Amino acid sequence: MKKVSLLAPGPTPVPPRTLLAMAQPLIHHRSSDFLEIFGRVREGLKKIFKTNNDVLVFCSSGTGAMESAVANLLSPGDKAIAIRGGKFGERWTEILEAYGCQAVNLDVEWGYAVKPEDVAALLKADPSIKAVYVQALETSTGVAHPIKELAQVTKGTGAVLVVDAVSALGVYDIPTDEWGLDVVISGSQKALMLPPGLAFASIGPKALEMMKTSKCPKFYFSWAKELKNQGDNKGTFTSPVTLFMGLLDIFELIDEMGLDNIYKETEIKSKAFKAAMAALGLELYSKENASTGLSAVEAPAGIDAQDVVGWLKNKYAIFIAGGQAQAKGKIFRVAHMGYISEFDTLQAISAIEMALAGLGYEFDMGVGVAAAQKIFGEA
Amino acid sequence: MKKVSLLAPGPTPVPPRTLLAMAQPLIHHRSSDFLEIFGRVREGLKKIFKTNNDVLVFCSSGTGAMESAVANLLSPGDKAIAIRGGKFGERWTEILEAYGCQAVNLDVEWGYAVKPEDVAALLKADPSIKAVYVQALETSTGVAHPIKELAQVTKGTGAVLVVDAVSALGVYDIPTDEWGLDVVISGSQKALMLPPGLAFASIGPKALEMMKTSKCPKFYFSWAKELKNQGDNKGTFTSPVTLFMGLLDIFELIDEMGLDNIYKETEIKSKAFKAAMAALGLELYSKENASTGLSAVEAPAGIDAQDVVGWLKNKYAIFIAGGQAQAKGKIFRVAHMGYISEFDTLQAISAIEMALAGLGYEFDMGVGVAAAQKIFGEA
Repeated sequence: MKKVSLLAPGPTPVPPRTLLAMAQPLIHHRSSDFLEIFGRVREGLKKIFKTNNDVLVFCSSGTGAMESAVANLLSPGDKAIAIRGGKFGERWTEILEAYGCQAVNLDVEWGYAVKPEDVAALLKADPSIKAVYVQALETSTGVAHPIKELAQVTKGTGAVLVVDAVSALGVYDIPTDEWGLDVVISGSQKALMLPPGLAFASIGPKALEMMKTSKCPKFYFSWAKELKNQGDNKGTFTSPVTLFMGLLDIFELIDEMGLDNIYKETEIKSKAFKAAMAALGLELYSKENASTGLSAVEAPAGIDAQDVVGWLKNKYAIFIAGGQAQAKGKIFRVAHMGYISEFDTLQAISAIEMALAGLGYEFDMGVGVAAAQKIFGEA
Repeated sequence: MKKVSLLAPGPTPVPPRTLLAMAQPLIHHRSSDFLEIFGRVREGLKKIFKTNNDVLVFCSSGTGAMESAVANLLSPGDKAIAIRGGKFGERWTEILEAYGCQAVNLDVEWGYAVKPEDVAALLKADPSIKAVYVQALETSTGVAHPIKELAQVTKGTGAVLVVDAVSALGVYDIPTDEWGLDVVISGSQKALMLPPGLAFASIGPKALEMMKTSKCPKFYFSWAKELKNQGDNKGTFTSPVTLFMGLLDIFELIDEMGLDNIYKETEIKSKAFKAAMAALGLELYSKENASTGLSAVEAPAGIDAQDVVGWLKNKYAIFIAGGQAQAKGKIFRVAHMGYISEFDTLQAISAIEMALAGLGYEFDMGVGVAAAQKIFGEA
């Protein structure tokens, strides 16, 4: 009977009408009806990615598309920069090493953004580096890396820029073509408001060229095969048809709202939530470039952040996320992306206040909620 | 308004109650509730696979799990037998070659089953062969390969047997442990009556041992990583939570019915359908080991099988499948697996009769339906 709230940075809540769109009887993945749906999905994704590039669709988690951006671009022994400012940045190194590539690790202190000049220096020092792998939004720290500037750094070089925008696409503006992003990756379960199960990769001309010489093995995640078949609106393998049906419904919702309005609303929720945390005397874990997609907040001294997360879950059935790896116990994370309203945000703030009070933190109950209400009221 | 019938050999129809189970609000993939669901999914799969081995779950189509059985067992240069009696058999060769392995192709005429003695001879001639890859049910021809006998052939050798049971699991009995099957692969969208998006791989002791020396790259499909994490009821990456919720519902349905009864009912539908085709004077494409999971039927001389498929789709909104590759235009295929009733089967027969009549084939209208009714009535 408890009313559950999902406020973790992915998977995010799915709109009820979309859940029902996906509860329609299945259609056959090789029927002409599905080819037409596949075509609409391809076009719709291009609009959200803001690109004329092909956007490939895979049935996998976002990691599958990340892996595809190593397997389809590089050959064993190739060097690539992995920008590591959090848990997802570290995944690039793991994938590169799994494929016998040399990861040039650019470690960034958690909570901070990469400096484009550091990437430029590495590329200048070693022109054999073939790719730069980065997160647009590092979900584990809440930090947005400077993607536009990184694209300017890689533009004149032989290296492609690969951007994991799983948590960023549809959250704030990342115009693939305008910024010249070679590869942009995303997934279904964040701002696209769907269950997990679809991953995407937009592939620009420089990446297409590099793909031709890649010798890493690939089959299920082969770009060449998918470019050919998806170009004919067919998945090479059995497409997850229900998620495609859901995605068409999401496109309608996004069209009604407008991408710019979605970015703006996400920003307001983020601003309100962050103001509430400040009013409670709490600090953000994201020391620079704090993203609008989620807030990563440090627990007060003496309070284990996992106790805050657990309090919300056990007492109120509200799901927020804790910290990962080195941030575990130190921070909690609350999402602003996707199908989350301002009142969901107020609910989160209110629940966090009650948890902190219960855990012995001293503050004036309600100041966080009031600070957020003020911002929502003005917006 | 047209009432759609999905009677192709996958994806198969999803029971309405399962569609609604999947339309429930999402839960968080790292919550303790989901860990519990993951544990129940693992146990439920073991029952259907009839194994004590770990059954890994991947978010992918069945092909992803097929690829995992190459990437996690072999090293570049390794030799493996690909049993190729249809389109899915050919896929083994493609995957092996993508990973730089040597495919020893054992070509079987489409419509026929592999001879275990041919596999035995190849293994004897070259003891360096490390694996035998086969389909339990080759969906493109409707033929069931002799899996039990193949397991007896590989048992005494250094080679593992990898069985693609995407179209066979839950259709007829393939007891993993009793037969000693080293690796069995399946997917969500056939007899498990779910949308596409989940793939499974059960991994036995001999395969676990071989895995340790495999040098092919793998990350998203890494068995070692998944064995460790799924052993703790956690996916390494974001699990497709809605399909897990659907799978729990399917387990209930299967438990209520009993696996043996499901095999039996599938067999009756198959028998009735095949009797109907015989009554119409049509021949099966499966010249031996015709499976119960689907029927692959040759169109009468002078009639393009694609016209039968198209007639059903365009006039009646009934989706059956045509032939693939060399069988295209020659055959049509109708599923008996999963959530397909005897009356769905009669509907298919009736529609095929009307299509054949419309396309100029001469026969006594109704003889197919009557032949099937007789079998259903006796069952």
